[in-house]
Amino acid sequence: MPRLPSVAAAASFAVPCRVYWEDTDAGGVVYYANYLKFMERCRSDWLRALGIDQLALRAERQLQFAVVNVTVDFLRPAVLNDEILVTAELARLSGATITFKQTITRGHAQLIDASVRVACLDSGTLKPRPIPKDLFLEWRNNGQ
Amino acid sequence: MPRLPSVAAAASFAVPCRVYWEDTDAGGVVYYANYLKFMERCRSDWLRALGIDQLALRAERQLQFAVVNVTVDFLRPAVLNDEILVTAELARLSGATITFKQTITRGHAQLIDASVRVACLDSGTLKPRPIPKDLFLEWRNNGQ
Amino acid sequence: MPRLPSVAAAASFAVPCRVYWEDTDAGGVVYYANYLKFMERCRSDWLRALGIDQLALRAERQLQFAVVNVTVDFLRPAVLNDEILVTAELARLSGATITFKQTITRGHAQLIDASVRVACLDSGTLKPRPIPKDLFLEWRNNGQ
Amino acid sequence: MPRLPSVAAAASFAVPCRVYWEDTDAGGVVYYANYLKFMERCRSDWLRALGIDQLALRAERQLQFAVVNVTVDFLRPAVLNDEILVTAELARLSGATITFKQTITRGHAQLIDASVRVACLDSGTLKPRPIPKDLFLEWRNNGQ
Repeated sequence: MPRLPSVAAAASFAVPCRVYWEDTDAGGVVYYANYLKFMERCRSDWLRALGIDQLALRAERQLQFAVVNVTVDFLRPAVLNDEILVTAELARLSGATITFKQTITRGHAQLIDASVRVACLDSGTLKPRPIPKDLFLEWRNNGQ
Repeated sequence: MPRLPSVAAAASFAVPCRVYWEDTDAGGVVYYANYLKFMERCRSDWLRALGIDQLALRAERQLQFAVVNVTVDFLRPAVLNDEILVTAELARLSGATITFKQTITRGHAQLIDASVRVACLDSGTLKPRPIPKDLFLEWRNNGQ
Repeated sequence: MPRLPSVAAAASFAVPCRVYWEDTDAGGVVYYANYLKFMERCRSDWLRALGIDQLALRAERQLQFAVVNVTVDFLRPAVLNDEILVTAELARLSGATITFKQTITRGHAQLIDASVRVACLDSGTLKPRPIPKDLFLEWRNNGQ
Repeated sequence: MPRLPSVAAAASFAVPCRVYWEDTDAGGVVYYANYLKFMERCRSDWLRALGIDQLALRAERQLQFAVVNVTVDFLRPAVLNDEILVTAELARLSGATITFKQTITRGHAQLIDASVRVACLDSGTLKPRPIPKDLFLEWRNNGQ
């Protein structure tokens, strides 16, 4: 059985993705909102690579993450069958939010340049709360 | 402020939908899985028209619905900007499942012919359970 | 047959949308990328209300639009069944790009605050080109 | 740079997929239409593994594929973070259509059992046309 690619934890993190029909639109290119899906896959894989299980965080620690801001430059379009590389890099870590710099590239061409700010929420109230110290430290060590 | 179209409860139910860029793929037509989204919108609107609130069902009665089988004939493609009509008709009601016949049409042309079987689940265990009698009766009166 | 709501052309434009299962994720709220779908529906409906047919623009005038930048603040989450209002307002019109200010609200609560810059492209080469004068004038008259 | 998993051409074909937030809905499980996306990824990867480039087929031979029928049994739900295996097996090859049997499994549990019939279309007219003999033979040799 083929396996999903595994990746080492690092300050900067990259996952390859394939562009399928589902990602494209009638303009022949990837639909603009779908680049945000690729970016989220990368952030989730990065958490996983750090040993962080988002479902366990919610079940055991009442903690979940929510994107509070994105800024995305769509530089060049991806098309069907493209093999793209999605990266995430920890740009800033404050008490309750994490800011990622993210890119999508195809070979040497950069397609997407983005900044994504994620907040830590109490999963009961959906209110912001500080990032627990152990996660905070792990990320700071990895990311900065 | 413009309002969403309202609809009367009935054995057969129809909602208009517009095809947007998000629904299409690089083949220039609606991506095949997205027709199932249109069909689900129709079923949800039909429940709403019957006064059934799916979130309240889950919160108050531990009950949710899950599709257990679909059979879909893709007869003709829809394209960007199409105004389509999605229908649902109660075809069969057994103790724990509901079978809908669904269609999607554009003007006089039929695009989709489908059958969808939905099961009633306990939202805690995700195991099948009988449809509560009050819902059952309401549907039987409306649908048969 | 129920009809989709119609809307008058205006500098500011609003369309109601319903939140369906397809829009939500396992966090119980609308998946962040899906707000961009709602925003695109509003821009497309606004073009349609202005009498502009995007497929005809491409077929007859080799012209298509592409989002080149988005900035989105996710202020509050939308949940299943919400009836939300999506707005678009022409914020700036330059030679080859249009900038929209967009919001999503639910009742009096603002959920999304966004800015979206769209470029006019030659649909053959996918290179930027000036917005044709007739469209430009129509938008300027409507939007400013 | 990590790479997407590569796979050998075969009568039966399998690709691993990860369940991300985008795939789930507020019920806490994968949204029913999204299983069809996983199944399409598998079919597309299988064509790619056979050396068949869908964009080249369309550009050079005016040929594209369209799903004309699906029958899907949803046996068990997938949830966030699941690593699932999607398979496709050539079940029948007629003059103008290909029928795949497809499954989705998680470990030893089968989640999805499906049959998908795909037609070969002229990409200009979108009318059915016979599958070209060279593709036909390649598939027959691989699949039967």
